[in-house]
Amino acid sequence: MTICKVTGHVWATKKEDTLMGLKLMVVEDETTGASFVAADVVGAGIGERVLVVAGSTARRALGRDDCAADSAIVGIIDNLQRK
Amino acid sequence: MTICKVTGHVWATKKEDTLMGLKLMVVEDETTGASFVAADVVGAGIGERVLVVAGSTARRALGRDDCAADSAIVGIIDNLQRK
Amino acid sequence: MTICKVTGHVWATKKEDTLMGLKLMVVEDETTGASFVAADVVGAGIGERVLVVAGSTARRALGRDDCAADSAIVGIIDNLQRK
Amino acid sequence: MTICKVTGHVWATKKEDTLMGLKLMVVEDETTGASFVAADVVGAGIGERVLVVAGSTARRALGRDDCAADSAIVGIIDNLQRK
Amino acid sequence: MTICKVTGHVWATKKEDTLMGLKLMVVEDETTGASFVAADVVGAGIGERVLVVAGSTARRALGRDDCAADSAIVGIIDNLQRK
Repeated sequence: MTICKVTGHVWATKKEDTLMGLKLMVVEDETTGASFVAADVVGAGIGERVLVVAGSTARRALGRDDCAADSAIVGIIDNLQRK
Repeated sequence: MTICKVTGHVWATKKEDTLMGLKLMVVEDETTGASFVAADVVGAGIGERVLVVAGSTARRALGRDDCAADSAIVGIIDNLQRK
Repeated sequence: MTICKVTGHVWATKKEDTLMGLKLMVVEDETTGASFVAADVVGAGIGERVLVVAGSTARRALGRDDCAADSAIVGIIDNLQRK
Repeated sequence: MTICKVTGHVWATKKEDTLMGLKLMVVEDETTGASFVAADVVGAGIGERVLVVAGSTARRALGRDDCAADSAIVGIIDNLQRK
Repeated sequence: MTICKVTGHVWATKKEDTLMGLKLMVVEDETTGASFVAADVVGAGIGERVLVVAGSTARRALGRDDCAADSAIVGIIDNLQRK
């Protein structure tokens, strides 16, 4: 799971049917700085630090294996302690 | 889902059977600048910003699990807001 | 399997249901220096060198295929010899 | 699908059984410059530009899901137009 | 399949059950220089050049889909010719 920050929203009228109704957010990977889009399943808001999963695991998190999303926000980080 | 720009077309006469009939487009990842080829399922045009999925999720988007494509354009971005 | 060092803990109250009860740790890839979060199944502690798996293999290690984790600590390295 | 150039051949006498009979070629990713090995299913030759797929999609292209190859050449590029 | 060199051994007493009995080796990707750990199924030795597969394909090579390894050595390279 990558550690990301939620930085924005995406709107796409024309999209694959299984993406309808999903909340699509722009996230930024804290380590690489790369920005990409993830479907949110935990009600994350702009500025929050989140856990993001990729690939087939994102489809599991979204609860349907035919879903055309390969990235999902699965947790909101309350605290992260490094030693 | 990566945020890409559609930059071109690809023609390949000799190809794996399951790729026949697919519209193959060159896309450029906005974050990394990498160019690769994705099958389009939403009618995207040159210059448009799109959402691209990879791996087994691309096969889901293309509607057949035996398809030999590992990248698909699944949405056309109308608006992307970063804060 | 990537060679990582366990560097911290993560707390996330709001998270996808299948992540409940998992011990989530911050790990750092020795090669790339990238930090990410993995679910621990072997009782690893801070500072230990561990083996980490990704993607669908992490779900196998966690023993349930519907789990929303795409990274897991699967071994604690006792010794690593390079020649 | 990555855009690669076929740059060589690989011989491996000792290999996993499911790789027997496959034509293994060295390809170079045009974007990253990385070289790796892909199984060819379309009769590609040295110097040609090809489309390469990875992961479970490569196994689909090779027609058997138990195959120990995670990369396959699935198309020969006739023309690629960028605007 | 990535082209790697076998550079060492790894010992891990505490590990996920499905990894018991596997020969775990350190390999170095020739292109990126990254070191990681792969399970060997072809009897590779230190210093040899090998083909390495990742993800679900590694589990196929190891012959059991519930295995917690996401990387496997599947061939020993006799000869690699680039033109």
